[in-house]
Amino acid sequence: MREKRDLLSIGHTAFDYIIQVNEFPLPNSATTINKMRTFHGGAAANVAVVASSLGLKSSLISAVGGDFLGSTYQDQLKNLKINVDDMILVEEDKTPTAFVLTDENDDQIFYFYWGAATRFKESPVPIEGILDAQAVHLATGDPTFNCKCGKFARENEKLISFDPGQDLHMYSSQDLLDVLQICDILFGNHHEIDRILKSINMGIGELQDYGPSIVVETRGRKGSVIYSTEKIVIDAVERDPTDPTGAGDSYRAGFLKSFLAGESLEYCGKLASSVSSFIVEAEGCQTNVPNLEMAEKRMEGYFK
Amino acid sequence: MREKRDLLSIGHTAFDYIIQVNEFPLPNSATTINKMRTFHGGAAANVAVVASSLGLKSSLISAVGGDFLGSTYQDQLKNLKINVDDMILVEEDKTPTAFVLTDENDDQIFYFYWGAATRFKESPVPIEGILDAQAVHLATGDPTFNCKCGKFARENEKLISFDPGQDLHMYSSQDLLDVLQICDILFGNHHEIDRILKSINMGIGELQDYGPSIVVETRGRKGSVIYSTEKIVIDAVERDPTDPTGAGDSYRAGFLKSFLAGESLEYCGKLASSVSSFIVEAEGCQTNVPNLEMAEKRMEGYFK
Repeated sequence: MREKRDLLSIGHTAFDYIIQVNEFPLPNSATTINKMRTFHGGAAANVAVVASSLGLKSSLISAVGGDFLGSTYQDQLKNLKINVDDMILVEEDKTPTAFVLTDENDDQIFYFYWGAATRFKESPVPIEGILDAQAVHLATGDPTFNCKCGKFARENEKLISFDPGQDLHMYSSQDLLDVLQICDILFGNHHEIDRILKSINMGIGELQDYGPSIVVETRGRKGSVIYSTEKIVIDAVERDPTDPTGAGDSYRAGFLKSFLAGESLEYCGKLASSVSSFIVEAEGCQTNVPNLEMAEKRMEGYFK
Repeated sequence: MREKRDLLSIGHTAFDYIIQVNEFPLPNSATTINKMRTFHGGAAANVAVVASSLGLKSSLISAVGGDFLGSTYQDQLKNLKINVDDMILVEEDKTPTAFVLTDENDDQIFYFYWGAATRFKESPVPIEGILDAQAVHLATGDPTFNCKCGKFARENEKLISFDPGQDLHMYSSQDLLDVLQICDILFGNHHEIDRILKSINMGIGELQDYGPSIVVETRGRKGSVIYSTEKIVIDAVERDPTDPTGAGDSYRAGFLKSFLAGESLEYCGKLASSVSSFIVEAEGCQTNVPNLEMAEKRMEGYFK
């Protein structure tokens, strides 16, 4: 008998390499890495980890490689009691890995390795995992897999949120129409929401009639805007940002935590802003994660 | 009571990432990694692993990070009974890591992270590790640490071989003079030997009078040349090369195994060529490693 879960996150679990160099080498030359740190990442896992810390019973479905077994990442998910029964394990390949290289001018180069995540496409819908959950969050990951998981979740009347994030370019207009039709909440940053609307040739009102009645646009330091029957503007909770990476994912976790607790959209946005303000204070997407009490306290102090 | 060892290798133990992309991204853009594999590497470890497979009681002194603990690399060294009692562990940093990126045109970019190996410089001479060994091989690694280990080994009448390899550019002319003065065997490829001679402004004969009476120049597919009281030319044992990486290190291990067994220099070179022919047949520096019987059998078949 499987335990009921509040939130199932579907999409990437990844290893992030944050690398600093003086300059990017030309072909056929070498450079020394000045600093290199590895972090736990992947948008779906980021949401699951923060949601779990905020008190949601979370589960996570990602495709991971042999290097995940026995890793500190696996230990961390276990410690947070995140259900990983339906993880797709591809022992002969690697867990998705992101390399972010930054030079002295703060220019960046990104390398992404999909690895095990190439298996999403052919993987069956995780029926039990979806049935066990109250809500399903579709994060970065394979569009085909996200679409079919979303459809099954819709048929079973789950609350569905969708955040294509940096994988947005992988979605055709039809893919987007398919997923948007069955989701309740769409998350995206300013650029992503614009790009989605252009791709499906709709305005925000049309989109809300077509699919997600709630559209949440996150704007980094400029806060966020929640489109529902009204437009709600939420300030960012300003902190000295060390590393903005993961702020968006933690916002989503904070929002969903409050939403599932039946709070108002304004409250959801404010708590979400507070949660993400913790994440930007430290390097990595899953570091300095607050619990609910910490997030509420900071929210109450800030939005007085 | 510590067990006597045949060969102590000093220098890098590293993780190697072999990465294939379509093209190298421009600053502020992203690219997908088509293929990524990780291998055990680092020149000192490569020599220790192959030497151990060939039957030498080996020990290894490298600076490794927290990621080394519990890794498959640690397991492998343990399985090969390589003594790692004197390893320098820097838990808060990473094991040295090399990223080798290759694009569709076979152009390459190299990134190196020294990580834990920055600690070599300030580490004390591993007195017991050196005293316990019959021979000491100084591989890629920190010049200062290599110099002081070499001097102590000389004072204690150890056989010393030296292979600065890709770290050659880190040695000043004085560093080179210091190490060359106390070593018995110098290993290098064609370019490295040329560069060393230029740096110290000597011819090969002068170098042999000054320090290493034996200079071994490896030339990839063109075989190797051993300079001693005579010049011995050894053919490469030709195999269809899958990956030349690690060939040089395995040659050194094969050479030292035979040398410590009292074989002639010609025999040492032939066995070394045979050993390296196994390594080039598979990807990685520590894969397809032969035992002594396999290496001898192939040598005997080839040099008939």
